[in-house]
Amino acid sequence: MRILIINGPNINLLGKREPTIYGNQSFDEYLGELRQKYSGVSINYYQSNIEGELINKIHEFGFEVDGIILNAGAYTHTSIALHDAIRAVTSPVIEVHISNVHVRESFRHVSQIAAACKGVICGFGLNSYRLALEAFLNK
Amino acid sequence: MRILIINGPNINLLGKREPTIYGNQSFDEYLGELRQKYSGVSINYYQSNIEGELINKIHEFGFEVDGIILNAGAYTHTSIALHDAIRAVTSPVIEVHISNVHVRESFRHVSQIAAACKGVICGFGLNSYRLALEAFLNK
Amino acid sequence: MRILIINGPNINLLGKREPTIYGNQSFDEYLGELRQKYSGVSINYYQSNIEGELINKIHEFGFEVDGIILNAGAYTHTSIALHDAIRAVTSPVIEVHISNVHVRESFRHVSQIAAACKGVICGFGLNSYRLALEAFLNK
Amino acid sequence: MRILIINGPNINLLGKREPTIYGNQSFDEYLGELRQKYSGVSINYYQSNIEGELINKIHEFGFEVDGIILNAGAYTHTSIALHDAIRAVTSPVIEVHISNVHVRESFRHVSQIAAACKGVICGFGLNSYRLALEAFLNK
Amino acid sequence: MRILIINGPNINLLGKREPTIYGNQSFDEYLGELRQKYSGVSINYYQSNIEGELINKIHEFGFEVDGIILNAGAYTHTSIALHDAIRAVTSPVIEVHISNVHVRESFRHVSQIAAACKGVICGFGLNSYRLALEAFLNK
Amino acid sequence: MRILIINGPNINLLGKREPTIYGNQSFDEYLGELRQKYSGVSINYYQSNIEGELINKIHEFGFEVDGIILNAGAYTHTSIALHDAIRAVTSPVIEVHISNVHVRESFRHVSQIAAACKGVICGFGLNSYRLALEAFLNK
Amino acid sequence: MRILIINGPNINLLGKREPTIYGNQSFDEYLGELRQKYSGVSINYYQSNIEGELINKIHEFGFEVDGIILNAGAYTHTSIALHDAIRAVTSPVIEVHISNVHVRESFRHVSQIAAACKGVICGFGLNSYRLALEAFLNK
Amino acid sequence: MRILIINGPNINLLGKREPTIYGNQSFDEYLGELRQKYSGVSINYYQSNIEGELINKIHEFGFEVDGIILNAGAYTHTSIALHDAIRAVTSPVIEVHISNVHVRESFRHVSQIAAACKGVICGFGLNSYRLALEAFLNK
Amino acid sequence: MRILIINGPNINLLGKREPTIYGNQSFDEYLGELRQKYSGVSINYYQSNIEGELINKIHEFGFEVDGIILNAGAYTHTSIALHDAIRAVTSPVIEVHISNVHVRESFRHVSQIAAACKGVICGFGLNSYRLALEAFLNK
Amino acid sequence: MRILIINGPNINLLGKREPTIYGNQSFDEYLGELRQKYSGVSINYYQSNIEGELINKIHEFGFEVDGIILNAGAYTHTSIALHDAIRAVTSPVIEVHISNVHVRESFRHVSQIAAACKGVICGFGLNSYRLALEAFLNK
Amino acid sequence: MRILIINGPNINLLGKREPTIYGNQSFDEYLGELRQKYSGVSINYYQSNIEGELINKIHEFGFEVDGIILNAGAYTHTSIALHDAIRAVTSPVIEVHISNVHVRESFRHVSQIAAACKGVICGFGLNSYRLALEAFLNK
Amino acid sequence: MRILIINGPNINLLGKREPTIYGNQSFDEYLGELRQKYSGVSINYYQSNIEGELINKIHEFGFEVDGIILNAGAYTHTSIALHDAIRAVTSPVIEVHISNVHVRESFRHVSQIAAACKGVICGFGLNSYRLALEAFLNK
Repeated sequence: MRILIINGPNINLLGKREPTIYGNQSFDEYLGELRQKYSGVSINYYQSNIEGELINKIHEFGFEVDGIILNAGAYTHTSIALHDAIRAVTSPVIEVHISNVHVRESFRHVSQIAAACKGVICGFGLNSYRLALEAFLNK
Repeated sequence: MRILIINGPNINLLGKREPTIYGNQSFDEYLGELRQKYSGVSINYYQSNIEGELINKIHEFGFEVDGIILNAGAYTHTSIALHDAIRAVTSPVIEVHISNVHVRESFRHVSQIAAACKGVICGFGLNSYRLALEAFLNK
Repeated sequence: MRILIINGPNINLLGKREPTIYGNQSFDEYLGELRQKYSGVSINYYQSNIEGELINKIHEFGFEVDGIILNAGAYTHTSIALHDAIRAVTSPVIEVHISNVHVRESFRHVSQIAAACKGVICGFGLNSYRLALEAFLNK
Repeated sequence: MRILIINGPNINLLGKREPTIYGNQSFDEYLGELRQKYSGVSINYYQSNIEGELINKIHEFGFEVDGIILNAGAYTHTSIALHDAIRAVTSPVIEVHISNVHVRESFRHVSQIAAACKGVICGFGLNSYRLALEAFLNK
Repeated sequence: MRILIINGPNINLLGKREPTIYGNQSFDEYLGELRQKYSGVSINYYQSNIEGELINKIHEFGFEVDGIILNAGAYTHTSIALHDAIRAVTSPVIEVHISNVHVRESFRHVSQIAAACKGVICGFGLNSYRLALEAFLNK
Repeated sequence: MRILIINGPNINLLGKREPTIYGNQSFDEYLGELRQKYSGVSINYYQSNIEGELINKIHEFGFEVDGIILNAGAYTHTSIALHDAIRAVTSPVIEVHISNVHVRESFRHVSQIAAACKGVICGFGLNSYRLALEAFLNK
Repeated sequence: MRILIINGPNINLLGKREPTIYGNQSFDEYLGELRQKYSGVSINYYQSNIEGELINKIHEFGFEVDGIILNAGAYTHTSIALHDAIRAVTSPVIEVHISNVHVRESFRHVSQIAAACKGVICGFGLNSYRLALEAFLNK
Repeated sequence: MRILIINGPNINLLGKREPTIYGNQSFDEYLGELRQKYSGVSINYYQSNIEGELINKIHEFGFEVDGIILNAGAYTHTSIALHDAIRAVTSPVIEVHISNVHVRESFRHVSQIAAACKGVICGFGLNSYRLALEAFLNK
Repeated sequence: MRILIINGPNINLLGKREPTIYGNQSFDEYLGELRQKYSGVSINYYQSNIEGELINKIHEFGFEVDGIILNAGAYTHTSIALHDAIRAVTSPVIEVHISNVHVRESFRHVSQIAAACKGVICGFGLNSYRLALEAFLNK
Repeated sequence: MRILIINGPNINLLGKREPTIYGNQSFDEYLGELRQKYSGVSINYYQSNIEGELINKIHEFGFEVDGIILNAGAYTHTSIALHDAIRAVTSPVIEVHISNVHVRESFRHVSQIAAACKGVICGFGLNSYRLALEAFLNK
Repeated sequence: MRILIINGPNINLLGKREPTIYGNQSFDEYLGELRQKYSGVSINYYQSNIEGELINKIHEFGFEVDGIILNAGAYTHTSIALHDAIRAVTSPVIEVHISNVHVRESFRHVSQIAAACKGVICGFGLNSYRLALEAFLNK
Repeated sequence: MRILIINGPNINLLGKREPTIYGNQSFDEYLGELRQKYSGVSINYYQSNIEGELINKIHEFGFEVDGIILNAGAYTHTSIALHDAIRAVTSPVIEVHISNVHVRESFRHVSQIAAACKGVICGFGLNSYRLALEAFLNK
């Protein structure tokens, strides 16, 4: 099984940025743990702060991997272009968020991409990524 | 570990109702499988079509179980009373949905209870319940 | 032919409640007349002020009767759960109202259930029920 | 008893236009059947695609007939002028629709004329006209 | 001086229609009085219930008369086409209403044509027309 | 004098639920004090988490008691059915809230029932109930 | 006949302020002309930039004069207190504006006071005041 | 105990203005009764139609009295400046209204000041003031 | 190939009306040029200011011509009846505008008919008609 | 160079009111420092809680000073009359705020006066006034 | 004549992505045909999924080419930055879309860039580009 | 002291683009003057049209410089990702604009980033940058 994890804007600062909301583990540390736990799964990883580069990566992998786990960060709430990219490829995509976006500002309650995704998982810290992986395994 | 699963209105018809959206397995069958798979977890189950009875059950169990998995069905989109019940108890609650609510009518895109919950999982069929269970186990 | 009439909240007070809007005949009197007039039709009747009990009754009868005449009262304007219950069963449902809801407060101009029903009849006093019956007979 | 049926824009194409929504019987055929069935009622009929001509006809007949059955077509959703015409005359008017407007585009969920009418009947195919006739007979 | 008075939908029923709002004098009687009082002014008069015929008349007279007094009735609140017709001609147009539209339904508080007119006069009964005439005389 | 106090959803948890907002006295304790203080008044008490049961109770008592003090909890903001129940009975109803709902989430700023009540009292802790009682005594 | 003219905020700058919109005659000059023309009418005049002082003046004169001509300036669009003052007195009030407010910013299209007034006249320059006077004379 | 009662715009006309809504007792008469009934409380009184003078008075007394009872009249619905004044002082403020604002125009359903106050009491006629006084005594 | 061009309200004034927006060539002149250029195409032409007559013409030609080029003028923004007429016929319809409607008032940014048309062309002056013709030829 | 500083409602309480938002220096102290630092500039100062008095002062000085620094407090968000006053005078006006209004309640995010001002400076504590002064000096 | 065609996000997948909406020809094939047909025109081509790179390209060419044909894809509906880029250059820009955006989701009915463009062409498949080219040639 | 100035989309065209709004000095010229005037301050400068590159730069410098002056251009009105980037770093950020955005289109009146910034300065031409610098110096 082959999975791609894509992180969007500002998630590169994880562990450094607003730790009361996002925790203080970096994503690289977490990714190491995840790969160890799911050693039978090949997990690719990509992060960018540029909306169009996220689209490029979805295009590149979206016809071959078994699933994409996408935390689009703030682009979740504004990007119809990402919505279109997800719809354009054949690999299923799961939207994840580290925090429970529904307890934050109202502009974070709207997702422009959820309707193009298979499902949504949010609020479980970094564990949201593992649950998405489980969702793909259980397919 | 002790978990309560609560299903809201119309989910008693699962397997019978709009199978193209909700699948054709009944919840009881699924519950049997889940209990077998997670034999170390004590899973209580309750279903009602009456909003206030869902609240009663949350009050009854919400100070003792380790987690509540709540599929509030259509009350998700309208019930501030359920929101208050969730906030009033100490057990963490996870909102789940069988279908991806974001691809359906726009009145299903709003959740009145998400902000009171720990997190949200939707779109994975009955597997959404198992992922919620995993989320509690991984806590 | 078998028909179920369901009345929602506050309609039990008919004849007593705001007679300038709803008239002063009780529903039981009217039901007697209706059964007499349509002696070839078996007419079941149910009333409850509890949203979830209306759903229960729709589930119970909604796979066997030839039609349901539903005056959901104020739940018409707020209940997505009733909408889902109507969609979940196979018997056709007609939404009726005694008064013309469009001449009253603006929150009564919106129906959450109409889109799940076969049709809508409103404004003809208790005669709205008879017209719904005619609609089923003429099917 | 004297009744006027008025049909608004595009209903002249009935039987020809989008038959999956409106059926494939022409209104003239239906009118014949209706007159036969209700031979004791004098039924006048008028159709126009011009909003102001519908108003003219309401003015002309609206002080003498026992009832007007009005399918204003798309003008239902936009015409305050028709609303005023209905209010200006003394004959009661019933708004009818062939399809259930509530399952179609959201701009068809709003009626500018319902508040000026006695009642509304929609969703029963051409049978909606007969039900309106019944409503007048039963007055 | 040459003036055109144009009345829109339903104003032909003046004196007959909802007299508590519009009074019970017919427009013809009033017009007679007005012509007598302002004998030095040539006053043309036109009424139609058809939006497009009002536009035709504005086109026909709108390059030669000294002023148009327009009571567009309900089209006031919906007709961008009338707005465009007023803007397209060179004669100044004054919007008048018999009743004070601001004390009636909220959909009558919006004018689609006011921004194309010289000014607005409403609420003075039939006297609104005379005041508009005075406004042109005083230019 | 005979008064009915009705408490809606989640108020049974008073003293236990979010004490920083609602205080930590249970409603039973408070009721005892209130009955002692107003020994000349017969005070009935009812609580339910079920919307329709609140309606049932209003129907049962609403034609005989001198006043109803209603804290409808979260149903305040969503229930048109309660609004109708209040309007349907003859006893006057006062809407009360323990907290000042206006300093909380915006969905708590709207009351669906206030327009059917005699008046509103909010923000005085449990003392809100006593003030409502005073309002009835002073009538 | 006794009339009071009240001007609201910034109208004291007339002749000085944005002359392309408001013209360059001062209100005092205009008032002189008006009094000369209507010598049989006693015309009081008051101007203030303070909302509450406008209310005070309406209270003071509003039970004795035959009419009040009110140009409330920008308070037209925001002052419910002025609305209440107009409703509280017995003298009829006419709302006037020098410019056609409907061709300016959208926040000037709404009047908070029109529903409390007898009628509205706008767009005729200072002549709007004279037309209002005519409206009172013609009563 | 020292209390300040502040009345806002148009309340000086009490007894004179729209008696079907506000009753026909003047506030001075009522104040006399109140002072007599609560002889142990020192009650200051102030009324103004000027928003800024209400603010001045709140500033002057708001650091010394035990409570302010504020009926801000129409400024309730529009004045953020009053909201800020209430928040800026240390004396608690109770918002009162004579009528039940929720049964009147929709622009009276919104309060700009409630969130800055301790609580709200409305709909009990002049008795609303006494209830507010009781609320302070019971503190 | 057979094409029908339909022009809606006020376009008969082309060349005369607001030339800075619409240019100063009359439509007849332009039509002559177009017919000369596309001599192999039979081009019918119709103009009316009456919404219902535009509908009549669409009905008349809409089952036989190869394409309709429709500039509905202001009815573009308000007419659901035209939308229905376009959907009711079998000939494809292209919506055209002379000016770029998106740089004008916001009420011109919405098209009620675009969703029923094959496509939209706007902003190219009279050339918009030629481009629509090209679109049909290229089909 | 001659500058006028105008402070609106509640700013007289500076140093006393909500010090966590506004700091605890009084405006008079700050003004002393500012005058010392900019000894070559003549700085007039005015404060009032009355909207109309702010307008009066803008009229009085607005044709002679080189600039006005205006902190309109809460009137910023509601006063079209102040907007008009600023537009009516010839001296440029800069809108200043002590706090960053964008991190506070949403009703403080809208400015009714900004469009009439030269520019806006907010969020720098009392230093906002100095920056406005610099802006005028640098002109 | 020199023309630049710019395609925005996801259009690189043309022929592969949702062929029922966008057809199954790649853009490169189409471009070849277009260049052949219009051999006298020099056609540059650029595609990027990155919003800012589209802006860069508009800046680079927008002062020299005779026209830009821009299919901004999903950025059409969200990008004010593209709007500004188009306004900032001197070459005219035509907005094109392959599909008729008005029959798709409502968030595709709004264009943030149309008001900065010369005109809009949508709904003609790849032929939309050719029509835009014709529009420039015919200038 | 170390300051970073970041300019967003289209500001690279300054001096060239819409000079009536933005002036005709290039930013490089202005930067030279600014560095000369504030020789004691180290001023870094960065411009990009790509949203994600602005975020990258804020991440790179936002933990070390003493302040960031950010003119995010059109991204100001749409970018939640920039908002998050500003909140994620420790250096304070000041939002600046050359023009007074409040006199332009309404979509420019909303800032998605202001709530994450220390303050906002707009409307002073290029001088806005100098005032921001002064704000940091005065800290």
